[in-house]
Amino acid sequence: MSLRNTLLAAVAATVTVFSFSAVAQETHTLRLAQTWGPNSPILGETTEHFAELAEKMSDGRLRIRIDPSNKHKAPFGIFDLVRHGQYDLGHTASYYYKGTIPNAMYFTTIPFGMIAPEMYAWFYHGGGMELMQEVYEPYGLLSFPGGNTGNQMGGWFREEINSLEDLKGLKMRTPGFAGEVMSELGVAVTNIPPGELYSSLERGTVDAVEWVGPALDFPMGFHQVADYYYSGWQEPNAEVQFLVNQDTWNELPVDLQEILRVAMRTAAYDMYIQSMHESGVAWDRMKENYPNVTHKVFPPEVIEALRETTNRLLREAAENDPMAAKIIKSQHDYLKQVRQWTNISDKAYLNSVAGD
Amino acid sequence: MSLRNTLLAAVAATVTVFSFSAVAQETHTLRLAQTWGPNSPILGETTEHFAELAEKMSDGRLRIRIDPSNKHKAPFGIFDLVRHGQYDLGHTASYYYKGTIPNAMYFTTIPFGMIAPEMYAWFYHGGGMELMQEVYEPYGLLSFPGGNTGNQMGGWFREEINSLEDLKGLKMRTPGFAGEVMSELGVAVTNIPPGELYSSLERGTVDAVEWVGPALDFPMGFHQVADYYYSGWQEPNAEVQFLVNQDTWNELPVDLQEILRVAMRTAAYDMYIQSMHESGVAWDRMKENYPNVTHKVFPPEVIEALRETTNRLLREAAENDPMAAKIIKSQHDYLKQVRQWTNISDKAYLNSVAGD
Repeated sequence: MSLRNTLLAAVAATVTVFSFSAVAQETHTLRLAQTWGPNSPILGETTEHFAELAEKMSDGRLRIRIDPSNKHKAPFGIFDLVRHGQYDLGHTASYYYKGTIPNAMYFTTIPFGMIAPEMYAWFYHGGGMELMQEVYEPYGLLSFPGGNTGNQMGGWFREEINSLEDLKGLKMRTPGFAGEVMSELGVAVTNIPPGELYSSLERGTVDAVEWVGPALDFPMGFHQVADYYYSGWQEPNAEVQFLVNQDTWNELPVDLQEILRVAMRTAAYDMYIQSMHESGVAWDRMKENYPNVTHKVFPPEVIEALRETTNRLLREAAENDPMAAKIIKSQHDYLKQVRQWTNISDKAYLNSVAGD
Repeated sequence: MSLRNTLLAAVAATVTVFSFSAVAQETHTLRLAQTWGPNSPILGETTEHFAELAEKMSDGRLRIRIDPSNKHKAPFGIFDLVRHGQYDLGHTASYYYKGTIPNAMYFTTIPFGMIAPEMYAWFYHGGGMELMQEVYEPYGLLSFPGGNTGNQMGGWFREEINSLEDLKGLKMRTPGFAGEVMSELGVAVTNIPPGELYSSLERGTVDAVEWVGPALDFPMGFHQVADYYYSGWQEPNAEVQFLVNQDTWNELPVDLQEILRVAMRTAAYDMYIQSMHESGVAWDRMKENYPNVTHKVFPPEVIEALRETTNRLLREAAENDPMAAKIIKSQHDYLKQVRQWTNISDKAYLNSVAGD
């Protein structure tokens, strides 16, 4: 073989062996807009955790450039930023887009709905993922679970709530669907920027504040100015969402799509577990340092009224929108089945070891 | 430039660009031994799910060859097979190796211990992973959570248990630590091969059988021959484990290590969620088709006796082994903190909506 042919053969061989690699090794830099600000605990950490998983698993072929809300200035506009392709990815909560895409909110939470593991079971085995995709598809988006806060507390109250009467005229910060329900029961629902919540509660401008749970409530300091911490009903789990621009997704090689998908899935589960851990730590600290802080549950008549009102509002939503009806029914039917199991397993167990 | 030089330059360029790829693209075939047999529901599906995640994310650079127990004939010998390098990976449960490595069992479950999300919080935020590694490291193994069954049921009983007296002389299949505790309370604990359990319960050779939960109990058919299904105390969660040979791990490039780690983590969480789903479906079906099937909880005096005995056996284990003491204390302290949070969140919520 002549030198020329040898060299040609070498080139050919090299090209053959590595041609696939040449495509696969391309680096993809994806821009992600997050609802949360820089250094945001748990929620922001989850975005960063996801990015790190994707980068490490892809050996740097995927790079995720995260813009917190102070960069893009649109914390509640992630849905638009991603569907219009200004960002490839978003990390946000579906229920912020109630105005544009009302049916998205059911993928974050429903009052009196499922607890976190039940919700994941619905997403992955009960048709939830398919319904979520049906809602987002017309906008050229893919959506995936993006992390769960776990069960949210009913809020911090300056006075005890012993009857439905005690809710009448009560000034409370509680947004969204829960706020609508509370309004129907006579609560004066107010909207106050997060930065002013502590001082409003301290001064009595509001009588109660609902935020998240111990992990995220602790840094807000509400336990210093209100003694009664009520168990919740309004967000028995709250799942945030990843949004992915469909065109971006389609351009990625199949292995990187899978790395992205699994990084999102793991980061979401991990956020649920981190929330559980940090709420345990924070609740322990609150009780230790603020002995006046007392855990309370709403009396049965309040729970019953909240529940009836919730069901009525959900019925109205279902009557006005076939897709809403489909999602609400799917969650309702799934809950009915899975809760029977939760009741004879974790619930029965937790009640039998009540002394813990 | 001459043709020869052009070609040489082309070869050089190709080699430069793709030299890294040449290393990274090497295929690694890892052999995995599983405790479970072929087509084993949930547990076996989890092994396969893990392998699929790893292969897809690595674009085939990782291949996992799974040998079920009928292949290697050592369902309870996975620990040895992997540490001696006959297999690279194992999928098994730590508590099967009580004889060789007694402290491993605490990473599967402890009676009256944590429920599944609490256990994951302990593994990932409460020092559990570090302790598990401390136990496995001397054997040249890495260990990772490998899937959770969720809360296990206390078993199928032919007659109701209304007092401690009813346990005396009762013939029951319940292995391991739970069996030791039951023995102390006068139960005649028997060991019967899985294939004979149904007929033993049917004929009354045993009075009760503890297996797992609805998802895995359903195919065994116990609900057809025993009416009383008791909530559990002995395995409030049960985490199975992946074992990885340390030498195999060290030989993998960093990105493939990360892919393996994340595939195991996701598959483990996914098994917990799948177990929740399938137990919901199976329990629903049992109740519908077998109206005699009744859910029961052990009376408080039985729970109290089981708990005191458990605590005494754990105290004895801790006194005899400093490492056991360290793991038991770590779980105990963590549970004490996290359970306070579970109690005011999921437990309070589940109790307030008791009608579900």
